[in-house]
Amino acid sequence: MAKTLEQLEAEIEDLKALAAEGAYAKDYLEIWKLQSMYSHLYHVGRRRDVPGLFAQKTPGVTMEMEDSGVYEGIESVTDFWNTLFDDAKIEAGHLAIHMTVNPVIEIDRARTRAKGLWHSHGYCSFAVEGVFKQFLCLGKYDMEYVKEDGAWKILKFAYRQTFMCPYEEGWVKEPVAASIAGSPDNHPDKPSTYYMPYSRYRINVFEPPPPEPFAD
Amino acid sequence: MAKTLEQLEAEIEDLKALAAEGAYAKDYLEIWKLQSMYSHLYHVGRRRDVPGLFAQKTPGVTMEMEDSGVYEGIESVTDFWNTLFDDAKIEAGHLAIHMTVNPVIEIDRARTRAKGLWHSHGYCSFAVEGVFKQFLCLGKYDMEYVKEDGAWKILKFAYRQTFMCPYEEGWVKEPVAASIAGSPDNHPDKPSTYYMPYSRYRINVFEPPPPEPFAD
Amino acid sequence: MAKTLEQLEAEIEDLKALAAEGAYAKDYLEIWKLQSMYSHLYHVGRRRDVPGLFAQKTPGVTMEMEDSGVYEGIESVTDFWNTLFDDAKIEAGHLAIHMTVNPVIEIDRARTRAKGLWHSHGYCSFAVEGVFKQFLCLGKYDMEYVKEDGAWKILKFAYRQTFMCPYEEGWVKEPVAASIAGSPDNHPDKPSTYYMPYSRYRINVFEPPPPEPFAD
Repeated sequence: MAKTLEQLEAEIEDLKALAAEGAYAKDYLEIWKLQSMYSHLYHVGRRRDVPGLFAQKTPGVTMEMEDSGVYEGIESVTDFWNTLFDDAKIEAGHLAIHMTVNPVIEIDRARTRAKGLWHSHGYCSFAVEGVFKQFLCLGKYDMEYVKEDGAWKILKFAYRQTFMCPYEEGWVKEPVAASIAGSPDNHPDKPSTYYMPYSRYRINVFEPPPPEPFAD
Repeated sequence: MAKTLEQLEAEIEDLKALAAEGAYAKDYLEIWKLQSMYSHLYHVGRRRDVPGLFAQKTPGVTMEMEDSGVYEGIESVTDFWNTLFDDAKIEAGHLAIHMTVNPVIEIDRARTRAKGLWHSHGYCSFAVEGVFKQFLCLGKYDMEYVKEDGAWKILKFAYRQTFMCPYEEGWVKEPVAASIAGSPDNHPDKPSTYYMPYSRYRINVFEPPPPEPFAD
Repeated sequence: MAKTLEQLEAEIEDLKALAAEGAYAKDYLEIWKLQSMYSHLYHVGRRRDVPGLFAQKTPGVTMEMEDSGVYEGIESVTDFWNTLFDDAKIEAGHLAIHMTVNPVIEIDRARTRAKGLWHSHGYCSFAVEGVFKQFLCLGKYDMEYVKEDGAWKILKFAYRQTFMCPYEEGWVKEPVAASIAGSPDNHPDKPSTYYMPYSRYRINVFEPPPPEPFAD
């Protein structure tokens, strides 16, 4: 037996709520994919393509990596990836991978802004002041995202380092065995907002906590 | 050309199936987010907030961690996180992180019950009987979830330890170099249901296997 | 006030787009779950169940694992998991886990074909030529998937090894300390398509890059 116009209208209202759940799921996964894309491009040495993952039109783009200080604006961020992290600098034996897992992502109701916190573990190897080293890495990606023309982009990028220690020895004795801050090619716009890696000698709080939901 | 009432009714039926797929995806991701939230709260030393991730109204809450034995009921679980794992016990140099990946999650048709199995890898450092140690961790989270007032909560929590070995030496020689069982603050309601970490001297089965789909 | 037939028709069109986003999210998660299922079955020693995760009817199934060479067709792949990786070969002290994270998955418009690239990290321990060893593993899963009777299956499986090094020493000195190629039970149909693990002595490119979206 056929349904009435009023019945269909009610069913459509129910469907709107159900379909909104799926749209939320897609946003969540698209942000996840963006973060994974960053991880893969970085790993295969296509760091020149990383700036394209950032917002190109939205004001407020920032980036900081470990103790690098803060790069402000898309031009400054682009310069970071093409100068300090220039692909041509990758030498024999270089390895760098930061995997990212366990995101807690909050998305606003309009589906245009998001915040995310991730655990990150990884491995690196390269020469530091002439000595070839291998590192065990741990940290958190503390991120904000914005949707531009239907695609999620990175608005704020901060890698909060927990440790980058000699692989053979672990993190207790020497938590951080490499540094960006003093590199001749490091020209941040502002000092680091927060840089407190693991220490054997303090109670470690490992900021930040997971993001709060948007107020809207 | 406008569609008829019958045509719209048929389209709505198709949409119901499609929208249900999206709702399933949201459930899957919400459970994932819940598990990630646990991981982050534990890592930043907000263990007092972990009981709030468990079911508050549904009977049958249980928790076991490594060789702790089983805590039964939300009061008992809350006590675990506020006594044995009291945030105030976190000392200088403490680090604890259990990342969780590769979930296999099964959700019932009513969207109110779920089961999940996860791989977990991590790092810890703290003093054991006066000696400061750093650990490499591997295990599985064997979980059940329930939806309360529209939000997914943990119903059953079991961390099945594979190893927690001295970081420098690996898991073959000394798979488990720390223990909860004998802690003066450990007061489980029942013995461990399953505790078989890695052993060099047996064929390891690493129970449990991934969960089966719900029968409904 | 009730809506007209034309209004409902317009709302249904909007809903179709929204619901398609949710269906995409479900596909993405189902592929992720398939890959996770593989990881768990492999870890618990149910390698005999792995061929069931591959496409059973679609031509073009292939598999390669590290330096194994290429197995072609579902019979050949099934034979691999039941002979070379026969569960009965698992000895005391055996451990093998490849976790998989950070997928970049592309799905075609028809929702029947997909490609995915994953980071993979893990741990293994077993005897190599009479000496018991423990390994740290890193690599990438380079995958294609196909939907058969509504369920995602593996069409092409390649584990691109970055390193499988002695856990105690790391990857720089001895990146690969185990091999499948020369095993008496290894009978691939074709040579490896790409096998270039980490080397201290070359600029490593770690192919492949993330997959491109489908052209459709």
